[in-house]
Amino acid sequence: MQFELSSEYIDHLKNAIAEKNDAHLQEQLKELYAVDIALILNNLNVDEANYLYDILDEELAADCLLEMEEEKREALLATFSTKEIAEQLDNMESDDAADVINELPEAIQDEVLAQIEDIEQASDIADLMSFEEGTAGSLMAKELVSVYAHETVTACIDEIRRQTESVDVMYAVYVVDDNEKLIGMLSLKKLIISHPLARVEEIFDADVISVKTSAPSEEVAELIQKYDLVVLPVVDQLGRLVGRITIDDVVDVMREEAEKDIQLMSGITDDVDSNDSLWRLSKARIPWLLVGMCGGIVGSRIIGSYEQQIQLRPEMAFFIPLIGAMGGNVGVQSSAIIVQGLASNTLIADRIAPKLLKELGVGLINGLICSSLILGYNLLVSESWALAATVSVALFTVIICASFLGTFVPLTMNRFKINPALATGPFVTTLNDIIGISIYFIVGRLLYSVF
Amino acid sequence: MQFELSSEYIDHLKNAIAEKNDAHLQEQLKELYAVDIALILNNLNVDEANYLYDILDEELAADCLLEMEEEKREALLATFSTKEIAEQLDNMESDDAADVINELPEAIQDEVLAQIEDIEQASDIADLMSFEEGTAGSLMAKELVSVYAHETVTACIDEIRRQTESVDVMYAVYVVDDNEKLIGMLSLKKLIISHPLARVEEIFDADVISVKTSAPSEEVAELIQKYDLVVLPVVDQLGRLVGRITIDDVVDVMREEAEKDIQLMSGITDDVDSNDSLWRLSKARIPWLLVGMCGGIVGSRIIGSYEQQIQLRPEMAFFIPLIGAMGGNVGVQSSAIIVQGLASNTLIADRIAPKLLKELGVGLINGLICSSLILGYNLLVSESWALAATVSVALFTVIICASFLGTFVPLTMNRFKINPALATGPFVTTLNDIIGISIYFIVGRLLYSVF
Repeated sequence: MQFELSSEYIDHLKNAIAEKNDAHLQEQLKELYAVDIALILNNLNVDEANYLYDILDEELAADCLLEMEEEKREALLATFSTKEIAEQLDNMESDDAADVINELPEAIQDEVLAQIEDIEQASDIADLMSFEEGTAGSLMAKELVSVYAHETVTACIDEIRRQTESVDVMYAVYVVDDNEKLIGMLSLKKLIISHPLARVEEIFDADVISVKTSAPSEEVAELIQKYDLVVLPVVDQLGRLVGRITIDDVVDVMREEAEKDIQLMSGITDDVDSNDSLWRLSKARIPWLLVGMCGGIVGSRIIGSYEQQIQLRPEMAFFIPLIGAMGGNVGVQSSAIIVQGLASNTLIADRIAPKLLKELGVGLINGLICSSLILGYNLLVSESWALAATVSVALFTVIICASFLGTFVPLTMNRFKINPALATGPFVTTLNDIIGISIYFIVGRLLYSVF
Repeated sequence: MQFELSSEYIDHLKNAIAEKNDAHLQEQLKELYAVDIALILNNLNVDEANYLYDILDEELAADCLLEMEEEKREALLATFSTKEIAEQLDNMESDDAADVINELPEAIQDEVLAQIEDIEQASDIADLMSFEEGTAGSLMAKELVSVYAHETVTACIDEIRRQTESVDVMYAVYVVDDNEKLIGMLSLKKLIISHPLARVEEIFDADVISVKTSAPSEEVAELIQKYDLVVLPVVDQLGRLVGRITIDDVVDVMREEAEKDIQLMSGITDDVDSNDSLWRLSKARIPWLLVGMCGGIVGSRIIGSYEQQIQLRPEMAFFIPLIGAMGGNVGVQSSAIIVQGLASNTLIADRIAPKLLKELGVGLINGLICSSLILGYNLLVSESWALAATVSVALFTVIICASFLGTFVPLTMNRFKINPALATGPFVTTLNDIIGISIYFIVGRLLYSVF
């Protein structure tokens, strides 16, 4: 059942396209879902994709278009006339159509919109295009079934029958008052098991969670996840029902959020993926590399100020990487725990002190273990007692400091509404590097004067 | 609408509990959803939680229990008699009840099961308990509505009415043949708009995606996400319908997967969160710290073999942290991109060569930029041309190597079915540290002999 795309299979399809073997292609694609065909289209060149697209059934084609990668879709649509694009949009739900049209060059957006045959669809799309990206309005679709509270079950079912063409999948019927204000919902189950002449107001559920069109998409994702919703109604400033957001759109938002966090943690600024161009990939990475480099330069100045000490005791240089790496590792561990706690809302953000204490406790335990081990190693291998003592004391101090910073930085960033995931990446690592080296050489100077 | 828990509010509730002010507590909790009350329960001590729990309405209480953190829930349940636990389980869906009972001490599991009043519920739970964790069987619930293909719409609706008590939310009716084999599904919308005397076999949709009970939960999450499903039926080895998995359960699996990846990337081995005990948190972090420490020791041996060079030219030591940090940063950037590509299935895994080439291209660009900048800095600041040349050439080489390793390691791990996220963390960083230092000193020895 699971479809795995291999390069052999792609080559096989490319051959069939070159030979214009439509019958064979149709046979090959028959069993596949839109998402699988989209994966194939992503891996063809634009002429081949265009050829294959034309073979597809109209409804399926529109679904495949939606599942394609953005860049590949744009390239494919660029080979279409505005009339052809409009035809594709007619086969989509309003929210998907608005997303696609927003990706088109601005010059042709109006022309495409004007050529959509279904006037209601065109007006819905135009409405949705006006919402800012990243808001509930931009995520919602206009297709929904709503009924007035005074209607009967039978009237409801008639209404559903009437609206059934535009609504693909339906989970609930929304209940509005005479001013179109959302006042509740009615599950299909309830509708099915209720008496045909029962009035909606007698059987509906007034406890309905909704969002405003202006709510950020993160809030939408949080609500849907927190309250285990499948669909969330969207209202305007006056509380009037204007659309609905389904969980599958939100799953995409969630995945994008998680990816963005991982990229921030990895020192990548822009939202890129491995299929982006060389320049985009380079540009997204250079800022944090430069931050790291500045950190390295600061580090070199610090070590530089201990030049004589190094000349006298070159063995001090041996453990510079160990101290730096351990500070970085501990810092990332601490901040990852905090960032996750914040993201999943299991932390009460205003209680910083207990968290700091706990992380310091963990730092204490792990610091003791690591510095004892390295003490043992150095006593066995190295001839210098001073070096052995310096490395262990410095390592212990560095681990404690890194635990503190790794906890404090993301909590503080969160308080100032900066995404704390940023703190888990190169930022904390660079800071810990610098602090670690300073501690190491200060401890070294002290202990060498003792031993 | 959004509920934010503050420490003041918790203290306020703690006071009300101490004063046994039930009326006030009930007033406070009236507006809240289960997930919000669970957050409160997580932040009370076990006696307070027990007191508050007793005030809650029966159905709501069971929901709150499910939303609590595992450790807090276990602590709360430990204060209940087996009879009381059984009562809670009776108010849950079978899959949730099975999860809770699996968390109980083994000694009392059978006793609790025996005390569940609803025999069918008890038997469903026992069935579900037998499935291995992490499989579709362990995720599914037994509550579902199924009909035979030869039945009429009216009979279907009667069946739904009969089963309505055990099924909380319902999205579709499953269609089975006379051997209970799953052959298709019928959306509620279709059911509502079809003629009452139409037969199921005339209107049902034979195109239904299902999983076997033995399928791993990652596969379930992938299917639901890929095909935008809300509910996925589960069949046994013979294709007979035995349960269904809803998207909200899978959203939890997805979140856990993402968290696991972030933890692996951050050098944390176990699935821990910030509320775990000090010992658990320490234990989960020490393995990768030890790996990092071994890397540091190897690094110290490498630098140690250049002891004379450092004594002669102590300025070589200044840039050790810069080289190490940049190697680490570049490696993590490259592997994060690859890990994400693999996770979102936008990569064709058998095409390694083009990815490697592209990452090398990015490395080339960023390597040139960074090494030119550091060359400029060193020419301005440092008196040693040899040092300036060494740092730049070594940095460039290190960035290229790190790009290569950051790409190659996760792709290779993926091929051998090891979670590639592991490669994005301390492993690649440590490797790059060691390689970076080696390159730096080799280049240094070469260039110092030239200048």
